[in-house]
Amino acid sequence: MPQLGLLHGRSWAALLRQLLRPPRVVCIGAVYSHSQVVEAVLTSQLKPHQEKSNFIIKTPKGTRDLSPQQMVVREKILDVIVSCFKRHGAKGLDTPAFELKDFDIAGEFDPMIPDAECLKIICEILSGLQLGDFLIKVNDRRILDGMFAICGVPESKFHTVCSSIDKLDKISWKDVRHEMVAKKGVAPEVADRIGDYVQCHGGLSLLEQMFQDPRLTQSKQALEGLGDLKLLFEYLTLFGIAEKISFDLSLARGLDYYTGVIYEAVLVQTPAQAEDDLLNVGSVAAGGRYDGLVGMFNPKGHKVPCVGLSIGVERIFSILEQRMKTFGEKIRTTETQVFVATPQKNFLRERLKLIAELWDAGIKAELLYKNNPKLLTQLHYCENMGIPLVVIIGEQELKEGVIKLRSVASREEVAIKRENLVAEIQKRLFES
Amino acid sequence: MPQLGLLHGRSWAALLRQLLRPPRVVCIGAVYSHSQVVEAVLTSQLKPHQEKSNFIIKTPKGTRDLSPQQMVVREKILDVIVSCFKRHGAKGLDTPAFELKDFDIAGEFDPMIPDAECLKIICEILSGLQLGDFLIKVNDRRILDGMFAICGVPESKFHTVCSSIDKLDKISWKDVRHEMVAKKGVAPEVADRIGDYVQCHGGLSLLEQMFQDPRLTQSKQALEGLGDLKLLFEYLTLFGIAEKISFDLSLARGLDYYTGVIYEAVLVQTPAQAEDDLLNVGSVAAGGRYDGLVGMFNPKGHKVPCVGLSIGVERIFSILEQRMKTFGEKIRTTETQVFVATPQKNFLRERLKLIAELWDAGIKAELLYKNNPKLLTQLHYCENMGIPLVVIIGEQELKEGVIKLRSVASREEVAIKRENLVAEIQKRLFES
Repeated sequence: MPQLGLLHGRSWAALLRQLLRPPRVVCIGAVYSHSQVVEAVLTSQLKPHQEKSNFIIKTPKGTRDLSPQQMVVREKILDVIVSCFKRHGAKGLDTPAFELKDFDIAGEFDPMIPDAECLKIICEILSGLQLGDFLIKVNDRRILDGMFAICGVPESKFHTVCSSIDKLDKISWKDVRHEMVAKKGVAPEVADRIGDYVQCHGGLSLLEQMFQDPRLTQSKQALEGLGDLKLLFEYLTLFGIAEKISFDLSLARGLDYYTGVIYEAVLVQTPAQAEDDLLNVGSVAAGGRYDGLVGMFNPKGHKVPCVGLSIGVERIFSILEQRMKTFGEKIRTTETQVFVATPQKNFLRERLKLIAELWDAGIKAELLYKNNPKLLTQLHYCENMGIPLVVIIGEQELKEGVIKLRSVASREEVAIKRENLVAEIQKRLFES
Repeated sequence: MPQLGLLHGRSWAALLRQLLRPPRVVCIGAVYSHSQVVEAVLTSQLKPHQEKSNFIIKTPKGTRDLSPQQMVVREKILDVIVSCFKRHGAKGLDTPAFELKDFDIAGEFDPMIPDAECLKIICEILSGLQLGDFLIKVNDRRILDGMFAICGVPESKFHTVCSSIDKLDKISWKDVRHEMVAKKGVAPEVADRIGDYVQCHGGLSLLEQMFQDPRLTQSKQALEGLGDLKLLFEYLTLFGIAEKISFDLSLARGLDYYTGVIYEAVLVQTPAQAEDDLLNVGSVAAGGRYDGLVGMFNPKGHKVPCVGLSIGVERIFSILEQRMKTFGEKIRTTETQVFVATPQKNFLRERLKLIAELWDAGIKAELLYKNNPKLLTQLHYCENMGIPLVVIIGEQELKEGVIKLRSVASREEVAIKRENLVAEIQKRLFES
């Protein structure tokens, strides 16, 4: 139940979150276009008297010049995302489908219940997209703040230290440490203290270990963060997804933005995949809690707690497209289920009657727009287009009141009574 | 089978058709934004070296500032249209969904087969949208040209005469005649001859009557048009939609654009509706054959026969929205099927386990994000949001291994074994 808070709740929250998105974003391409839209819409909310026709947005990247195959892949990705959002009670799309990749829950609720649902949603979407194994790194802004304080990082250096730490999934700790000490003026002993923490990642046991850490638990903030994460892990266990989640003290994104739990989903690569740079795409989803953001825009300064997630549609699209190329997967560009064919001349009228029956029953059907096409041409068309079923009508069938139903893959044909045809086709489509 | 011709066939054809759309269009709002897009895309095709980031399109009218209820209505309209296009073999969307309202078939085919399919598609969409009774007026550019010639209209006056005739669905023939004679310099006897034709509309019998007209059939063009319409009516009869089609000699749209059959769908209003101006919305779909258009842009001048249709999404949206207001219809803004509730305290963990089972089975489910919500609050939420089913779990149910399944409408509750819950919910959702 994504409850809506002030300012029309979720959609507002999503807009603000997009607008004030941290510099390191999940998905450059999509976010670029999305923020354009957000800018236009925000202007409309903030300046109600401005003429709407003055809004100008750029053409969203990636929605033009796509091949039909690419469009099918894109449509499938969006379909998985939108279905999942709706399964979790999302309201109707308030942006065109190609921009819809955010889910936010705004309002005052009991701790970690919406947060756990956001992680469940990421799991469902990444599983549904069949991207392979994935992992969601989880951390908390308050743990990071507490950790920096006890390690002796001056508050003015939190950001610069974060940007170094955030590279730990790409370069070694040795290199990160070198960058911090040599380039960012972090004292070596401070860097070493940070290193003790940020090289840790694990599950509930790491969390318990941190609770035993006498220095970290001195920080009220860090202790709050640890407590929330513990509750979160409990809910994730009930949701059956705890094994997909890794508590990772090096996850340090969006510090001027997120106020509590933060998370980032990455694909787990096999060594072979990791060697292939093209498949190395980094994070595919991310999000967190941002309780301060909506309040900034509220005239009365009311705080509106928010938690949300973004799906990296463009990155996922690149991965699936790359996989299509690598494995030569054939993608159908139409959804046609049945082709209406005849082996004989002067059967156009019978074909037209038959196809109208199929359309009226909701079956996706095609025929060739020719008076007398050759049977072979018709069957080749089915094979090329990946249409699974053919109904064949000829003199003999017409006389006997039957129709031949042919499976394109197996080339098997069976005769079916005309009146049973629709039911038989629906049965076969349901089973396949 | 929408076969694709030169220049990537259908999508090209749709773009060109939009670009060169006649001044009287079906749907001002949508076409305005669509043609903006077309302009951008066309530029991209014609000037391949131009930077894509220079393209600027205006925010499509009607996609911003919509309420969740309005978004649901819009989504349903687009869903009916897209499903129908796919049922007829359309390829994946190559424009964002809110612009998708055109269907075109480009290529060399036997006469009137694709044209008949376009009319079938219009019928399926208008029936599917449950807009009430409708009628599709059909005419032919060549019949109009022949008719004007035999009536003595000089070719230079075809356009101006057309724009008068086109008003016949709104004003009387007397007024149309007056406009032609007094304002447009048409000789009174010429106007009377035109009047004999343009006041005619009917079905196949009117077509037969026109075949008997010795003057009209002197025109080779008109005779061709009549022949095609006759074949078209034959196919429409096979498709079971002939009674929805009216041969109307006053239909005179897009003369510098269409080359053959033209059509326009209008809602048939009851006298009460006709009095209410707000419901008087004119045509809701239109289209025709435009064989010359794509050839104009082909470097070798190859003619590419095309036939297509446009759905007036904005007008249909206005009608359905008006109807919602008039009849106070309640529109659900979410699709949630099941709500997970408890009458007892400290049952959050059981609710979370249960809802994860439902989500994993693909069931759309919600709960309140509170540790201990009141049962009444939970049931009120279901009633307000129109959620049809509630599953209730409490101490007693947990002990007995059952779940209570409650129908929100009837308030009936039955106990169901926990392991049968998903199957029972799926059964109920399937039946409803």
